[in-house]
Order: sequence, then structure tokens, then C-alpha cells
Amino acid sequence: MARVRVHNFTITLDGIAAGPGQRLDAPFGDGMDKVHDWMEVAQADRAAGKSGLGADRIDGYAEGVGATIMGRNMFGPQRGAWEDESWTGWWGDNPPYHHDTFVLTHHLRPSIPMEGGTTFHFTDEPIEAVLERALKAAGGRDVVIAGGAHTVQQYLRAGLIDELNLVIAPILAGSGEHLFDDVANALGAFQVTEMVSDPSATFVRLERQ
Amino acid sequence: MARVRVHNFTITLDGIAAGPGQRLDAPFGDGMDKVHDWMEVAQADRAAGKSGLGADRIDGYAEGVGATIMGRNMFGPQRGAWEDESWTGWWGDNPPYHHDTFVLTHHLRPSIPMEGGTTFHFTDEPIEAVLERALKAAGGRDVVIAGGAHTVQQYLRAGLIDELNLVIAPILAGSGEHLFDDVANALGAFQVTEMVSDPSATFVRLERQ
Repeated sequence: MARVRVHNFTITLDGIAAGPGQRLDAPFGDGMDKVHDWMEVAQADRAAGKSGLGADRIDGYAEGVGATIMGRNMFGPQRGAWEDESWTGWWGDNPPYHHDTFVLTHHLRPSIPMEGGTTFHFTDEPIEAVLERALKAAGGRDVVIAGGAHTVQQYLRAGLIDELNLVIAPILAGSGEHLFDDVANALGAFQVTEMVSDPSATFVRLERQ
Repeated sequence: MARVRVHNFTITLDGIAAGPGQRLDAPFGDGMDKVHDWMEVAQADRAAGKSGLGADRIDGYAEGVGATIMGRNMFGPQRGAWEDESWTGWWGDNPPYHHDTFVLTHHLRPSIPMEGGTTFHFTDEPIEAVLERALKAAGGRDVVIAGGAHTVQQYLRAGLIDELNLVIAPILAGSGEHLFDDVANALGAFQVTEMVSDPSATFVRLERQ
């Protein structure tokens, strides 16, 4: 059965997914520049052929995933109508998705086929309909809800997420978007099935029971 | 230098220190019955002469501590005026503090000397004045701000806490008192100096820089 997953979504110790002031040179906002340091450790481990909690998580990211859904704020720092259509995401010419990637936005654009198999689709359909399209595109593989917090919360509240793999970075942000805001009822369906740490982060898995 | 510490303060993965509906048979409120399971593991480890993250934390609790401050809701499930003065805390005749323990409340009572050296003092003084009394009573040793969340937050916002030793239990509560609510500015002074996990919990240390 294809699952709907959140994978390697990183929050601070105080539960913040993005600080205030998200912009081109601070994609996760103020106070968040160290939030993904665990990924550098993981990539160094993997490059050195070493195992590690973070490296395992990165390896597991793409495994069995056939489509991705993200919010428009995760796709880029622009807000409101597109001033032009030159922006094709944060990830360069060959984004790390390699499959159909649906961007939730009220500001539609033509789909963007990228190198390496990623195609960005822009949609203002209801989140349930977007998930149906993504599941179809994934052809039996899993769908990842990539972020940001608001998009994850929408899918959580709709009861559509099976598994959350969260990473807790050992930093404090103080203010910003709290992942766990207003999802109290949705969280009742989940149990923590794994919680492990290394010096870079704490890695948590929540699964719908 | 005597330090002001929060020690072994336990929150859920979603940052909740106490659920709704705190009462005699649910001191931490609904959905929180497993929040201190790590302590059972720690006590079993200690009884068996084994080391462990939780056991080390419990051993460190009393070390060098000379006075404790807590909120009235941590002292008991009653709210408002005392109906009678028979309640002497959750901890039986010999509470685990063994020193002067100040209870913040608008509803004053005479001090209660207990077995084993704990004396509960009830005070409606400003939190700064209570801390001064506690530091004096501690005679050069540390003061622990025991909880609940509201009391910890008051001392955090006042900039009076040096170190927080938190425990993150691998459970989700959904709703209740969030430890990290409205302490954004206060958290800016702290850094995460330790974050380690075992299957029972994640243990975090935050220190004022």
C-alpha cells in the first residue's frame, strides 16, 4: 500500500519549522541557519562510506517515493503573484526529487520539467485532490509531503498522513512557525515508534496507529 | 557560584508539560500518564546498579541543590482558596526535596515541616524575592525551579534561569501547557549543550551563554 509520508522534516528543539523573515538568502528565515547542519554531517558520513543516523535517514528519503507535494513557500521566497517565471526552485537545474512534484499555490504557472526527472506542477486544487493526483503519479509508490509546516499541518488535520519522520535540531529558534500548532486532534492518531540521537540531531518517527 | 536550574523537567515530543484536566488521579492531566515512564526505567537501572542516561539525570537532580521553588499547581491539584490544610503535597510524609521548598501561591498557609528535611513555605511575594529567599536558604548551593510550565516560564522571562535540563518523552499530548510558549526572547540567551537519547527519552541540556 502506498503511504503518505513526511520525511526528514526538521524542527528546532522548541518545535519551530521556519523562523520569521524567510527570503532568498535565508530560506528557513531568521535564526535557522544551523537547522540543517545534521544534513552536512550525514552527507559527509555517506561520502566517507560511514553509516550514521542522519545518513540512514537521507538514504531512506528517496526510497520508494514516487511523488512529492510542497507548499509554495517551500518552492521559493516569492509571495503573491509571480513577477516573472524565471524562478524554478531552490535546487538548481537538477532538483533532488526526480519525479512529479506538486506545488500548492493560488498563483498558477505552467508545469516546469527539470533535469533528472523532476517536474514541478502548480495547482490550486483542494489538498485531497492534489494528493489523489500525486498518488496516481507515484504509481503505487509513496508520496512525500515535503513542507513547509503549514502544508504538513493541512494534511495532518485532514488525516491524510501515515508517517512523519522528523528531525529535531539542537538549536532554539524562539519564534516562527510551530509544526505542532493546531494539530492536537490529528496527533492523537500517531505514536512515536522511534526516537534516537547523535550529536547532530534527534531523529523521531511517528506512525499512524 | 550558585546556579538556578530546571532539572528533569519533562515534556512531550510536542512540547507539552501538562495536559488539560489536572486532578488528584492525573497530576499531569489527560494524555500524560506515560510522560514519566523514563523515571521508572531510570530507577530500575539505578536499583540494578546499572548506569543509564535517566539514572544519571536522577542522580544529578539533588546534587548541589539547596532549595526548590514550585508553582502551587505542582504542589497539589486544588485551585483557589484551601478548603482545609490537610494536603501536604503529592510526595507522602518524606518528600524528595530535603530542603526549603517555596510554593508560589496567592493562597497562603503556615509553613509545613516534613520528614527528611523538606519544609514547604507558601509565598505570594514577587518571583525575584522568592528566588532571593531560596538562594539564601540554599546557602551557596543551587536552586531548582521545579515547575510547572507556568513557573518555569515566569523565571525564564525574568532572565533568572542559568540551566535547563529537559527530558523529552516519546509521546504526543496534542494539547495542554506548552513549555516554549511566550518565552521566545528568553530562549535567545540559551544554547543546547547536550542532546542524547535512549529508548526511554531524549535528554537535553540548555545553558545560558
